[in-house]
Amino acid sequence: MPEALLLAQLAGHDLAPLTAPRDTARFSTDATRRGGAQPRLVLRPVNTAGVSAALAACFAVRRPIIVQGGLTGLSGGARPRAGEVVLSLERMTNVAPVDRIAAQVEVQAGATLQSVQQVAQAQQMIFGVDLGARASATIGGMIATNAGGIRVLRYGMMRAQVAGLEAVLPDGSVIDAMRGLEKDNAGPDLRQLFIGSEGTHGVITRALLRLHPAPSLQINALCAVPDAARAQELLAHMRARLGPLLSACEGIWPEVYEGAAARIGTPPLPPGAGLYVLLEVQGMAEVLREEAFEAALIEAYEAGLCSDIVVSQSASEYDKLWALREACVAYTFSLGELVAHDLSLPARTLPEFLDAARSLLARIDPEAQPFVFGHIGDGNLHYIVNTGKGSEVTGGLNALAASMGGSITAEHGLGQDKVRYLPLVRTETEIALLRRLRAALNPADLLGQGRVLPPE
Amino acid sequence: MPEALLLAQLAGHDLAPLTAPRDTARFSTDATRRGGAQPRLVLRPVNTAGVSAALAACFAVRRPIIVQGGLTGLSGGARPRAGEVVLSLERMTNVAPVDRIAAQVEVQAGATLQSVQQVAQAQQMIFGVDLGARASATIGGMIATNAGGIRVLRYGMMRAQVAGLEAVLPDGSVIDAMRGLEKDNAGPDLRQLFIGSEGTHGVITRALLRLHPAPSLQINALCAVPDAARAQELLAHMRARLGPLLSACEGIWPEVYEGAAARIGTPPLPPGAGLYVLLEVQGMAEVLREEAFEAALIEAYEAGLCSDIVVSQSASEYDKLWALREACVAYTFSLGELVAHDLSLPARTLPEFLDAARSLLARIDPEAQPFVFGHIGDGNLHYIVNTGKGSEVTGGLNALAASMGGSITAEHGLGQDKVRYLPLVRTETEIALLRRLRAALNPADLLGQGRVLPPE
Repeated sequence: MPEALLLAQLAGHDLAPLTAPRDTARFSTDATRRGGAQPRLVLRPVNTAGVSAALAACFAVRRPIIVQGGLTGLSGGARPRAGEVVLSLERMTNVAPVDRIAAQVEVQAGATLQSVQQVAQAQQMIFGVDLGARASATIGGMIATNAGGIRVLRYGMMRAQVAGLEAVLPDGSVIDAMRGLEKDNAGPDLRQLFIGSEGTHGVITRALLRLHPAPSLQINALCAVPDAARAQELLAHMRARLGPLLSACEGIWPEVYEGAAARIGTPPLPPGAGLYVLLEVQGMAEVLREEAFEAALIEAYEAGLCSDIVVSQSASEYDKLWALREACVAYTFSLGELVAHDLSLPARTLPEFLDAARSLLARIDPEAQPFVFGHIGDGNLHYIVNTGKGSEVTGGLNALAASMGGSITAEHGLGQDKVRYLPLVRTETEIALLRRLRAALNPADLLGQGRVLPPE
Repeated sequence: MPEALLLAQLAGHDLAPLTAPRDTARFSTDATRRGGAQPRLVLRPVNTAGVSAALAACFAVRRPIIVQGGLTGLSGGARPRAGEVVLSLERMTNVAPVDRIAAQVEVQAGATLQSVQQVAQAQQMIFGVDLGARASATIGGMIATNAGGIRVLRYGMMRAQVAGLEAVLPDGSVIDAMRGLEKDNAGPDLRQLFIGSEGTHGVITRALLRLHPAPSLQINALCAVPDAARAQELLAHMRARLGPLLSACEGIWPEVYEGAAARIGTPPLPPGAGLYVLLEVQGMAEVLREEAFEAALIEAYEAGLCSDIVVSQSASEYDKLWALREACVAYTFSLGELVAHDLSLPARTLPEFLDAARSLLARIDPEAQPFVFGHIGDGNLHYIVNTGKGSEVTGGLNALAASMGGSITAEHGLGQDKVRYLPLVRTETEIALLRRLRAALNPADLLGQGRVLPPE
């Protein structure tokens, strides 16, 4: 159906449609910077009724749709394919006042992470997920992709932040699971069907998000660590000492450390270590013995788990260590066209994986340079490679991670770009069940077509 | 198909079948003590292959099956219906050694909660969910019903404890989602389909459970509180002070308090308060300022949030306060045939619900006596009534909770006994989606027939 007819049908709704190429160009790609098809129609509803009307109209004529949030995805999930109508949630950005007793906030799906962080902060609360793309990434996209980030070991991924969820099915019907109860076992939890579905089961339109009391005391430290096995022992040691107050454990390998440190000025620790581990404790000043963090680090030093430590002594030193971590992304992006991987490894094989990956790279492309950093506390490595043999390297690393019990995508999702690797980490029976699930929720396969599931 | 033919087909498998009425009688009811149909065949596999064979054989002849764990359910989920084959997991009780680096333990679904708690404890770790039925309740049943218990506000429900899951679909095919990665966004998370499905989507056979470092310091306190609104303010205050170290917030109303206290000897606090709130902090001795808990309680006292406080000063005092909480269940059970409800309320309406419920009871049955206790930190009230008008009271209380944004079952699930009330808390669109989900996973509706979904 031509766009004009679709628009005529939707005339009564405030959808702020865009059709001119100069207006729709900005919807044609995502953070992968790979070019997608330029959409011929972009619909921009302001509320759930608008989303429902748009989906119902497209469903009636079997027109494929792709939903877009902040376009910060790294797997091509929101990058349009030819013929798709783009449904952008950029005008659905309301954030309600915080419900302080429930410790929840209701948002529209197009609200950015940063806008949620700001309203929480104004009430001495925090939102549990944080990531570098906070100014653009939307809550809807983050729920749809079950985003992770830097404090998963303390607060969990997006799945753990969702108290209530509203979603629109492809036929326009609305699932209102917004009661937001901490406990509600009246049947299987429908919210879980949409979290991590990358938009292929329905369009998330609203959410009730959990908030936490803002920690009045937060300290971080950078440690020089001999190797990954020692980094894991350091993590286990700090977790045993600090329990749930340990809030981050990030790893930065030397190639990235040196480049990232150069971007922020003087390196906090000299180069030469096997890797660098950034640890953080968050707690309440009245409750947390401030000296306990440093004492635990000194024990780790004495046990040979790290060879050098710098502990933040002020807010500015604290911010500087986090700036170093954020500079890892900026630094690797600045190196041009690298091949990125978002791997997940079980704790028991992560050190072995790092060695095996180096050997594999040397075999495939002796010129290849790896740049590695990530969330060592969750076994999640952002493994980025400078290579001319991208597809062999990607195939090799994904197969290696899978063979060691890992996953080909820890937090970025499958999108379009990683679909072909799904059989490395899911059995035929699992993929068959994923198809049955897709058929039950999205029967004409109009929503997110070509994403997540490989072609049959 | 007669049982003999089914058994002949399964002859090669170690299923320890039971058919004699004296052997099968113990499988005919659950903790509701209501009589179910006595099964004519009980199959008791020892492993996943046995479960798969049993399900495939029943599927081939369209024979309905009900899976049973520890039979501690309170909604009739596992209580057999006429014609059902019982699949008992009582011989699948293996618990593997703890993986200390991953902080996980692999178990068969028939393992009891207590057996998991014991292996965790031996490694200075704890399992996050605890509940009174720990000696009988099985991990598989607890996952299938997304069990909650006393520390949900700190560790979450069973959903948050599951790192890996294996389940057998009704046709005997096995879903192996046992990688146990902290982060794995390769497609929608199939584990979530089985958690909280009450056995209607598949039979859970194995799980990888998350463990936490055992707290070296735990203190609890009982507070006399004027009313529920003040109890919620007390909770908000303690959470703001203690953050994630606050590990329990239980409420006991006077009728239950006096009876339960009498069972354990001297009451820790005199009678006469509006309600009693049991609070707990769990942390590491090196990190947690022990005096902070008491200081925060004194602030609450000074703010009028409580009128009397007893803080545990020793392990035996700590145990005694928890014994009081456990005596609430034993006390109300001892009162004979009461009508139990497992309600969930949003924080904003919980105090108002309590008043409205008293008025409702007085209208329906002036003789009715309510006995109320529960997890006030999660908005979950176990609302038990001594009444001769059980069905009117249940209908009235469920409708009231639903109308105030609550749920008719916070943690016990729907089973057979609460199915009729599902439309109070789920829209037609939601129930239609639940049916599509059931059809996708359990197409012949052989597993858990008559549970969870109302008849069409």
